[in-house]
Amino acid sequence: MPDSQQLDVIFIDIDDTLFATTDFVSGARRDALQSMIDRGLNANIDDLLAELELVVAEFGSNHDHHYDFLLKRLPTEVTQNVNTDLMVVAGVIAYHNAKWKQLRIDDADRQLLLDIKSSGIRLGVISSGLARKQIEKILRLEIDKYIDPKLIFITHSVGVAKSNVQLYESAIAAAGCEASQIMHVGDHPYHDIDTANAAGMVTVWVNGGGKHSVNEPRTSPAFKISSFAELRDVLVSNYGLNE
Amino acid sequence: MPDSQQLDVIFIDIDDTLFATTDFVSGARRDALQSMIDRGLNANIDDLLAELELVVAEFGSNHDHHYDFLLKRLPTEVTQNVNTDLMVVAGVIAYHNAKWKQLRIDDADRQLLLDIKSSGIRLGVISSGLARKQIEKILRLEIDKYIDPKLIFITHSVGVAKSNVQLYESAIAAAGCEASQIMHVGDHPYHDIDTANAAGMVTVWVNGGGKHSVNEPRTSPAFKISSFAELRDVLVSNYGLNE
Repeated sequence: MPDSQQLDVIFIDIDDTLFATTDFVSGARRDALQSMIDRGLNANIDDLLAELELVVAEFGSNHDHHYDFLLKRLPTEVTQNVNTDLMVVAGVIAYHNAKWKQLRIDDADRQLLLDIKSSGIRLGVISSGLARKQIEKILRLEIDKYIDPKLIFITHSVGVAKSNVQLYESAIAAAGCEASQIMHVGDHPYHDIDTANAAGMVTVWVNGGGKHSVNEPRTSPAFKISSFAELRDVLVSNYGLNE
Repeated sequence: MPDSQQLDVIFIDIDDTLFATTDFVSGARRDALQSMIDRGLNANIDDLLAELELVVAEFGSNHDHHYDFLLKRLPTEVTQNVNTDLMVVAGVIAYHNAKWKQLRIDDADRQLLLDIKSSGIRLGVISSGLARKQIEKILRLEIDKYIDPKLIFITHSVGVAKSNVQLYESAIAAAGCEASQIMHVGDHPYHDIDTANAAGMVTVWVNGGGKHSVNEPRTSPAFKISSFAELRDVLVSNYGLNE
């Protein structure tokens, strides 16, 4: 439908939308714990992983001291002979090495971003988390070249959560066009779809098996896809993007 | 002199002793600033480098916000159109990439550490800085396998500076032997040599062109070498290490 519908901006979510963060994280945590075991932590990796997941659940994924807390919670006989700083740093390094090594988008997704940008549609990001952690992902994924740096909205930077329509309204104001000309692509049924719908944006739900894929949005997304790559079909069929 | 002199422990300093930190840092800073320029910071790299060095001089090398402060100090016309988070994170990533890529010790130094450990001499570290920054260097250099984790003494972890003989006395107590059976190898004339001398340790001054190489120690080191690799000669000639 070439002229009838026009899109000025596409906002994308990062985690479990542009890449499968949930899958990566559990592998990276296992690498971290193995690195600690290799340096003398005398414990079973599955027990450690289970305890670490409790720490993350209790204190949140943005907490700065997951491995310190894990070590504090282990039985004294496990930790009495270890150098805590060495253990924690070994874990952090292994986690980051694993994560950054795997933080890649495939060629098809990269080409899609390039084609969107080349078509004149601006690309932005609306994402939950700490500003600098999310921006590190953007840079490590090497997608910053496709994204307008004025259109990056990260909850902890703005001070507004994705459950609050204000976040999306700020993004619309920065884009400087009608909400109906702005698409938001995300995986979370409530935080990406319902709130962006409430702001009047065109919503695309990526329902691809990430941790938020079990629930349905309360309001209908304009489009539903099972992987980010399928966004191409949506844009070709409905917005005249070249195939 | 086989039996007359015996060595139980060798402590080594890291920066500008085991590797040339000073040289690396200035290259890594340049990479960081180039990465910011590549992402739209409209300024001359040499001007940026000069200003960054002022920030580091004014606030110290362990300050957490060098690039934020640099951006705050630049003229408004340079920074008004940039995304500060994106700039800072781009700089930090480039800095770390450059630094970790170059944080390597050569094969001869690695073999020396292995030979020391194999001879039954325990290896430790006495180093200035933040515990986790220095331990990250130990792990990135992959020398943790040679070092006894109970013999790592980092000033900001102990709460005692290298200018205070107490730091060395703590290390001697942990080693559990006479000070005269303990060697300390470092580059700083006062903080590595004079203080370790005061504690009664056998001192080795690495005077190899790092930033502290311009001054002479006030007290004589037992040995003076111009690179870490030359420690092998000292150990072979005086302590019966196999060649």
